[in-house]
Amino acid sequence: MTIFSDNLAKMREHALSIFQAGLKAVEPGAAIRRYCRPEGETLFIKNIPYDLSRFRKLFLIGAGKASAPMAKALEDMVGEKIAGGIVNVKYGHVDELRRVRLSEGGHPVPDENGEKGAQAIYNLVKQARKDDLILCVISGGGSALLPLPFRGITLKDKQDTANVLLACGATIHEINAIRKHMSVLKGGGLAQAAAPAALVSLILSDVVGDDTDVIASGPTVPDTSTFRDCLAILEKYKIADRVPASVLRHIREGRAGNVPETPKKGARIFDNTQNVIIGNNADAIIAAKQKAETLGYTSLILSSMIEGETKHIAKVHSAIAREVLKTGHPVPAPACILSGGETTVTITGKGLGGRNQEFALWAASDIAGRENIVVFSGGTDGNDGPTDAAGAVADNCTVERARAIGVEPVQFLSNNDSYHFFEKLGDLLITGPTNTNVMDIRIMLVV
Amino acid sequence: MTIFSDNLAKMREHALSIFQAGLKAVEPGAAIRRYCRPEGETLFIKNIPYDLSRFRKLFLIGAGKASAPMAKALEDMVGEKIAGGIVNVKYGHVDELRRVRLSEGGHPVPDENGEKGAQAIYNLVKQARKDDLILCVISGGGSALLPLPFRGITLKDKQDTANVLLACGATIHEINAIRKHMSVLKGGGLAQAAAPAALVSLILSDVVGDDTDVIASGPTVPDTSTFRDCLAILEKYKIADRVPASVLRHIREGRAGNVPETPKKGARIFDNTQNVIIGNNADAIIAAKQKAETLGYTSLILSSMIEGETKHIAKVHSAIAREVLKTGHPVPAPACILSGGETTVTITGKGLGGRNQEFALWAASDIAGRENIVVFSGGTDGNDGPTDAAGAVADNCTVERARAIGVEPVQFLSNNDSYHFFEKLGDLLITGPTNTNVMDIRIMLVV
Repeated sequence: MTIFSDNLAKMREHALSIFQAGLKAVEPGAAIRRYCRPEGETLFIKNIPYDLSRFRKLFLIGAGKASAPMAKALEDMVGEKIAGGIVNVKYGHVDELRRVRLSEGGHPVPDENGEKGAQAIYNLVKQARKDDLILCVISGGGSALLPLPFRGITLKDKQDTANVLLACGATIHEINAIRKHMSVLKGGGLAQAAAPAALVSLILSDVVGDDTDVIASGPTVPDTSTFRDCLAILEKYKIADRVPASVLRHIREGRAGNVPETPKKGARIFDNTQNVIIGNNADAIIAAKQKAETLGYTSLILSSMIEGETKHIAKVHSAIAREVLKTGHPVPAPACILSGGETTVTITGKGLGGRNQEFALWAASDIAGRENIVVFSGGTDGNDGPTDAAGAVADNCTVERARAIGVEPVQFLSNNDSYHFFEKLGDLLITGPTNTNVMDIRIMLVV
Repeated sequence: MTIFSDNLAKMREHALSIFQAGLKAVEPGAAIRRYCRPEGETLFIKNIPYDLSRFRKLFLIGAGKASAPMAKALEDMVGEKIAGGIVNVKYGHVDELRRVRLSEGGHPVPDENGEKGAQAIYNLVKQARKDDLILCVISGGGSALLPLPFRGITLKDKQDTANVLLACGATIHEINAIRKHMSVLKGGGLAQAAAPAALVSLILSDVVGDDTDVIASGPTVPDTSTFRDCLAILEKYKIADRVPASVLRHIREGRAGNVPETPKKGARIFDNTQNVIIGNNADAIIAAKQKAETLGYTSLILSSMIEGETKHIAKVHSAIAREVLKTGHPVPAPACILSGGETTVTITGKGLGGRNQEFALWAASDIAGRENIVVFSGGTDGNDGPTDAAGAVADNCTVERARAIGVEPVQFLSNNDSYHFFEKLGDLLITGPTNTNVMDIRIMLVV
């Protein structure tokens, strides 16, 4: 058996170029340009015309890891119209803007600089008038980058609360409910502060299903949770005496009606608010599919919304690869099967890795010794788990190559140590920060 | 919202008829007829001609839950040529045969009658000569229905050994290795007893990937495991002192070379043996796909080899349904997504259910409240887990209908009680025994 055939080497190159085509489609500037188009005095956003001459002032705000290039693309289109703006970004995620100030802050742990930036955005939108237009750019990480807790609650209180919730096994929806009720800007708070000005939020989605109330904790989107829910969550997990006193007090006051609820669907403050998804995982994998087709692969998108335990998701993918080889279903070889979304890993070991690397390693085990199959999995933000890799690439010879150098896949899998497995094989995908984030892209080539 | 729209009712009917089309393709007689064709004195098996006039005698043997109708179909083709035969079937799984004796025995727990039948088959093939032809029909359950332990080992010893192996967490491959080394007929033993007669084994596959050495413990297939492996397994799980003394003694004697190994690949005894898969899950879902297409659905087979934890497999399926609705990938609506194989359920509750019913319930939760989606999952043998149902059907309104009668899906899921959930809704799939078994068929219709 050829340990590393020319064919596999070429397929690996193809997989990388297919991934890069996906990334390119969701580069934040490209995403903005796909949905926004200036024409004279008019800015078309998803074909809805905004006649900028009808507004007194145009502001540009936002938050998120990809928000600097999003703001840059808008500034390039309508820069001379922008009266001012502030966009909160992660340290180092900057760009050269002329009209808009980029304010750097901590991520994923929010810090004082983030709070200063959030306060500045709040102050800016509070002065906006009914005849003003606010463009808002939102992307993943926008929640940590818009930290403005209610009076009496500190950033540390918020962080402590999040830690208690994580430790007790609360769901992400429960955590978000409480997070939104501690914060001035989350859960529709930013839209509330901006009203009655017109607000258009351009959102790069990093969540499965593109739920706008989840992305960056939905600062411009009606909230579905209530103070009542928050109190029920504290009771459900019996953690009322473990969250900071300031948080418990705020939630109880809210439940008693002494603090206003987060704004809900149908509230007047949303009358002038539009939320527009301008980039998501589907955009990336559709572009990846087009690239795969130009390379000669019969291509199929399974879903951009794949969730679940990585091991089992890998099993499904390898079952599909084996079916391609056996019966030519779901598509005949040479085939490219694409999927997106974000899987989870239940960690039981002490190794280093991420969901993409672990996916590649499980798949490698499932396809070992079969015909030519390449499996590629990468995070579009260039960041897979707590590693400097975005993901990894594997093929039907990976297990054999590993064993030839004394590396046993099962041991690395059981220790959740996919990073060191692929490091030893030279098969890590290292991209560095990509400045975008629409979750993961998985590519499977079967020849 | 319509609780149970006309559209959904029609889609449910469609799902059932698609399932039935799949079943029909793997009805054991139909499967035999697809691959076997008599022409004058010649029997074509997968287009290989067997000139029956060249053989002194023709025997027909076999074992498995579907083996009676398989034998019947062959008898209908070449009955007057058959000199005699014995086929071991499960109690009640009988048919009217003229030349072949059906011997009933215990399944899934083998019993004395099964052993008598196995001994009779052994005696029959031992008398066969080089110029004889033995046709052998094998299907799922054939392992329990061919119980012939080596001298000194009782059926109870075998059963006790299986229980110890299951309890210690041994893999199915490890259990099979030991099972084959305790048995005269498994792991190629039947082929060995039949040599030097010509032997053609016609196999209905009930295992993922159709590995012939796994189906019915591969009575006519070279074994890949050794006595050395068996001893290593006992040591690995530290169970040498927990398996019956007779079994330990046999394995040690085998390891010492005092008992012959199971026959291996390349052994002369296989020179006149052919193993032919005459029906499998892929056959069923390909036929199901054809039916779905005649009903107007754009249809796609994911894979006939889906394994993994049911909950996560359901997540993947519902993610695909949602993608169909959102972007028209992998195929546009009206879409039929098909998959096969056999998933697992890690049981933590005390309820009643099976992998197909649990699949339908997880999927129901994932698709609740969305557009028209019907999810149908059924075992082709008519038997899902320890229930009288083959599976269940669910749709996007299932959760709402359940709550309307005070039935909370999450409670039934956490108690692994999918049977009672669907019983209350009247959504169980009850087929009774189908006399075939090619694992499960999952059908998802999205309109």
